[in-house]
Amino acid sequence: MLILMKVGASDAQIDQVCSIIQNRGIEPLILPGEPRRAVGIPASLSHDQRVDLESVLGRLDFVSKITQTSSPFKLAGLEFHPEKTVVQAGNVEFGSGKFVVIGGPCSVESYEQFRKAADQVKAAGATMLRGGAFKPRTSPYSFQGLQEEGLAIMKRVSEETGLATITEVMSADKVEIVAEHTDMLQIGARSMQNFPLLIEAGKSGKPVFLKRGPSATIDEFLLASEYVLNQGNPNVVLCERGILAMDKTYMRNVLDLNSVPVLKELTHLPVVVDPSHGTGVASLVAPMAKAAVVAGADGVMIEMHPDPNEALSDGSQALDSEQFSALVGELRGLAEYCGLRI
Amino acid sequence: MLILMKVGASDAQIDQVCSIIQNRGIEPLILPGEPRRAVGIPASLSHDQRVDLESVLGRLDFVSKITQTSSPFKLAGLEFHPEKTVVQAGNVEFGSGKFVVIGGPCSVESYEQFRKAADQVKAAGATMLRGGAFKPRTSPYSFQGLQEEGLAIMKRVSEETGLATITEVMSADKVEIVAEHTDMLQIGARSMQNFPLLIEAGKSGKPVFLKRGPSATIDEFLLASEYVLNQGNPNVVLCERGILAMDKTYMRNVLDLNSVPVLKELTHLPVVVDPSHGTGVASLVAPMAKAAVVAGADGVMIEMHPDPNEALSDGSQALDSEQFSALVGELRGLAEYCGLRI
Amino acid sequence: MLILMKVGASDAQIDQVCSIIQNRGIEPLILPGEPRRAVGIPASLSHDQRVDLESVLGRLDFVSKITQTSSPFKLAGLEFHPEKTVVQAGNVEFGSGKFVVIGGPCSVESYEQFRKAADQVKAAGATMLRGGAFKPRTSPYSFQGLQEEGLAIMKRVSEETGLATITEVMSADKVEIVAEHTDMLQIGARSMQNFPLLIEAGKSGKPVFLKRGPSATIDEFLLASEYVLNQGNPNVVLCERGILAMDKTYMRNVLDLNSVPVLKELTHLPVVVDPSHGTGVASLVAPMAKAAVVAGADGVMIEMHPDPNEALSDGSQALDSEQFSALVGELRGLAEYCGLRI
Amino acid sequence: MLILMKVGASDAQIDQVCSIIQNRGIEPLILPGEPRRAVGIPASLSHDQRVDLESVLGRLDFVSKITQTSSPFKLAGLEFHPEKTVVQAGNVEFGSGKFVVIGGPCSVESYEQFRKAADQVKAAGATMLRGGAFKPRTSPYSFQGLQEEGLAIMKRVSEETGLATITEVMSADKVEIVAEHTDMLQIGARSMQNFPLLIEAGKSGKPVFLKRGPSATIDEFLLASEYVLNQGNPNVVLCERGILAMDKTYMRNVLDLNSVPVLKELTHLPVVVDPSHGTGVASLVAPMAKAAVVAGADGVMIEMHPDPNEALSDGSQALDSEQFSALVGELRGLAEYCGLRI
Repeated sequence: MLILMKVGASDAQIDQVCSIIQNRGIEPLILPGEPRRAVGIPASLSHDQRVDLESVLGRLDFVSKITQTSSPFKLAGLEFHPEKTVVQAGNVEFGSGKFVVIGGPCSVESYEQFRKAADQVKAAGATMLRGGAFKPRTSPYSFQGLQEEGLAIMKRVSEETGLATITEVMSADKVEIVAEHTDMLQIGARSMQNFPLLIEAGKSGKPVFLKRGPSATIDEFLLASEYVLNQGNPNVVLCERGILAMDKTYMRNVLDLNSVPVLKELTHLPVVVDPSHGTGVASLVAPMAKAAVVAGADGVMIEMHPDPNEALSDGSQALDSEQFSALVGELRGLAEYCGLRI
Repeated sequence: MLILMKVGASDAQIDQVCSIIQNRGIEPLILPGEPRRAVGIPASLSHDQRVDLESVLGRLDFVSKITQTSSPFKLAGLEFHPEKTVVQAGNVEFGSGKFVVIGGPCSVESYEQFRKAADQVKAAGATMLRGGAFKPRTSPYSFQGLQEEGLAIMKRVSEETGLATITEVMSADKVEIVAEHTDMLQIGARSMQNFPLLIEAGKSGKPVFLKRGPSATIDEFLLASEYVLNQGNPNVVLCERGILAMDKTYMRNVLDLNSVPVLKELTHLPVVVDPSHGTGVASLVAPMAKAAVVAGADGVMIEMHPDPNEALSDGSQALDSEQFSALVGELRGLAEYCGLRI
Repeated sequence: MLILMKVGASDAQIDQVCSIIQNRGIEPLILPGEPRRAVGIPASLSHDQRVDLESVLGRLDFVSKITQTSSPFKLAGLEFHPEKTVVQAGNVEFGSGKFVVIGGPCSVESYEQFRKAADQVKAAGATMLRGGAFKPRTSPYSFQGLQEEGLAIMKRVSEETGLATITEVMSADKVEIVAEHTDMLQIGARSMQNFPLLIEAGKSGKPVFLKRGPSATIDEFLLASEYVLNQGNPNVVLCERGILAMDKTYMRNVLDLNSVPVLKELTHLPVVVDPSHGTGVASLVAPMAKAAVVAGADGVMIEMHPDPNEALSDGSQALDSEQFSALVGELRGLAEYCGLRI
Repeated sequence: MLILMKVGASDAQIDQVCSIIQNRGIEPLILPGEPRRAVGIPASLSHDQRVDLESVLGRLDFVSKITQTSSPFKLAGLEFHPEKTVVQAGNVEFGSGKFVVIGGPCSVESYEQFRKAADQVKAAGATMLRGGAFKPRTSPYSFQGLQEEGLAIMKRVSEETGLATITEVMSADKVEIVAEHTDMLQIGARSMQNFPLLIEAGKSGKPVFLKRGPSATIDEFLLASEYVLNQGNPNVVLCERGILAMDKTYMRNVLDLNSVPVLKELTHLPVVVDPSHGTGVASLVAPMAKAAVVAGADGVMIEMHPDPNEALSDGSQALDSEQFSALVGELRGLAEYCGLRI
């Protein structure tokens, strides 16, 4: 940590900063400077020490700025865990060098609809099946999902087709039942900082698919993953799914593909891209899914629907069976070209 | 709803749009145009009808754009409820023409600290006491609050001082215990779209203080309030607390005071401003709190701490007792000048 | 400047950083640390030295982060110029403790329209007259202003009414003619980083009214003012006029009133607020103009039109004569309440 | 255009809207609705008619919302110009199915440096040479470029190597001299709405490389291109170079690759991606350049420097000669895989 003084800070003020630090048993170091001096803290601080010092020193009139000098993510970061993590969910592996394609409808609407989707997903060559049972909807008047009934359908279809499944869990008290019925817990973008939910998902030991909040910074995203990891659950997959768009005329979100190489430089966790929610527009899904392969993602999550025109939610971004199948073919070719398996 | 066709859409394509609408028992109206035609739906649609049609029609290649023509918030909107709502929380009224000042520390740290804060808040002339028992923290390694012990302290201090209290509830399963110990449930900015929590807070009937998410649109904010209202709980106060800052050099968030007059044109619910979290910087709290009075807010929530230098969280934005007391005095004068009571 | 090394950086790598610095005749200082070490530069650097070092050191694999420790604005900053600047434009003073109200239409449309507006502005008690002669328009097919003819009208009306005038100049080659016809040069938000224009405005010595770009950080805003100040022209007034809105449903921009107290802590230059362009909505102008007084602004710029329904541009945010007059009255009362003259 | 009335608008108010429209010689159409009615304008409007009506009608209290129903870009849009445009600049073609790689340093620093860069660019197989002579710099204290001397160097190096060249022009009065010395005029991101410059570039007839402003919407970007096209100059290449980042911790801008397929659906103009400025980080350039190929771009602009550690500006995002050469090789392979030539 580095505490930068304001121009003209007196020796007494420098002393005051040093005293506050020394009172906490930490040794400061005065850094001379023109026109400003600074006080450095050479020691590694715990998170609470950092927050404490930042609060106390940040209030002093003669302190100009405080800079953190150590990484806040102990478990997700590459610094202390340089080897890549492989996350196993059912019969699917993330981060193993095999490009994962997850497909399926926004909502589980009925056994027939979901089974049909599963058959198409499998036929296309994708390896994991998504579907929403509990649906987070901006309006209380929108379809909220089939809930427990949807989970039962997912389990049945998974057993019948052999496809691993993933679905969103929206609250801590549903983690157990969702974990019993599916292979992977999805934490949605709006729940990225639902800390009780993250802790419960961590405790479950079940693989967790954590979506980035639309306004979350990379640090906040990784710190959310720390909540899961810190419960002793190392099975976290990160998912980029679009950041807040200033211009919503032609897309609902801005898929931030830059986050893929950025995350790869910071963390050992696998990174997946969701171009369907990430753009909100069906015609953008294929180009951005393909770009995700090249940018270094470990997989993509694609919304498809056996009959998009009949979808109860988010139909406008779903691919139909033919479009989905064609895209999986293109992704396979591209992944092979890039030296990945699929 | 208005469905705008692309340039050159054929009669057959117009017919297809009309058929889709008619199949749902709704009568369309063709609107001629140069260079584009459009199809209008004169009838009032339910939310699910809108979502359904938007999904289905939005996928058609020859449809250019779909415009909604009715307000999505039935309960929060002024259209069907033109008179202002007054929300009672303990002995405090929001929206009654009396300007409300809520004060208190970020976290309840001990009985002594919180009682001291309460005495200072009361002495300054503020009427409601805030304090955090469950703390949503970006990092799992930060202080998470005293939790149930904090609630007990809040109840005791409220009984001793007569001040109404408010605290944040972070998950649906804690609504009951928080409701038993305090006068008002705060839904934090990161929980604004935690729908199970909103529903449970709605069911409790307890007054709800709903903070705007940092990236939430006004519509999303009002729709979140609909989740509470829709459970038969009319006691919702809206709180502006800063939107995402592109430039975090000098403030943590951008307090969006514009939202106060905007919300006043749309909803009958009271609107409160939190300049402490809304800016994240102690020196900006006073000017922005005063500006909030003039902009038409029904109250402010101000973070203060009996000894900010010892605060366990967010010390850098808290006012000390003297600053808080001086600010309440200024707010009182300004509110009176503006014809409000305080 | 502080150069933070990555975890595990070797002594040889620390030496390499020190050599690069020493080769430029600057003495580095090694700052020990756990888990990272850092290299500090105690000396005050010129801008080019900083940029140079940042580029060179920023490319080294073993450097984690570079932090600047000195203020980039030498002329606009309070550090080296603590007394407030008063800018005189015609008979109007900015920053003298007298609250300035600038009023007038978006565009100068004709002598009759502009003279009528001027009479209303004067009658309302405002002291400066605005009007656009050169109009920056998003589309080439929109009305581009009367240009030189508009300038002549401005000069005539100014002479007839005694009101000081301000108008936008969009390119360096028009600075001279605009300076001859009006009392103050406005640099529009879209031109905030038109550096040749800033330099020319600086050279003219004429008072400059610099609007913040909608996506400009505070630092970029102040650095733009440095371009003018650096030409020996100290007469710069800063104008907040709204930042980029993520949610454009109810306002065109987000007026960032927080920038007023932030700028007051950083610079000695006067700060004015434009709630008309800052929100883009007529009904938000009055509450936000009043809030600007309380937040510490030195003045406001308000768009009014003698007949808004006939305005050739931006009519939807303009006040009519009565609304404008009522608002000036309210501002006067509020300014007096706040201890300002008007 | 569709004018949506507020709930409860009276027949007289509907009539008032219709009168305003009829007074302009346009025939309105009343669209019944529950709970709101609307007035449609079937005719195609000129831009000024639209702006005029929007201003006048937008001020009426009983009008809720106005929706535009025709595309604002007449020349850039695919609607009236469905065939793709090929832009020729020197011996380089954009949009012809051949993937273009532009390389070169941020600034022309000397003949030796620029010639060396050109040799490396040519050896790597890239076909166009970039370099800055006039540099837009946030601070007036940064290196501003060699200006006219830089142009002369560019011309000499172009003649010696046969490489087509491109450089930025920052003001209207420099268009002529830049056009004489290079093959393509670059309009920088900060100048995207410098309308006098756009008009002058349009008049020159020279090919124009228009960079998207960091906060520009897609519509604003295309409308800026209309300023050039409208002068009778059809030779415009659009360049995506990153939008405003909310999180600047790991990148300077957010390269918005989504804009590539979005623009391809809207315009016939070629689209190029600049991952160097678009991310601001050297290690992100290669993955994002490759992703651009797959997303459908017509080319990339890559910053390279013969010795990045000695660069006078922006060294931290420049590739060195080896990195550049390796990247061009990868791009060639990928372009061929995607069916493009390079």
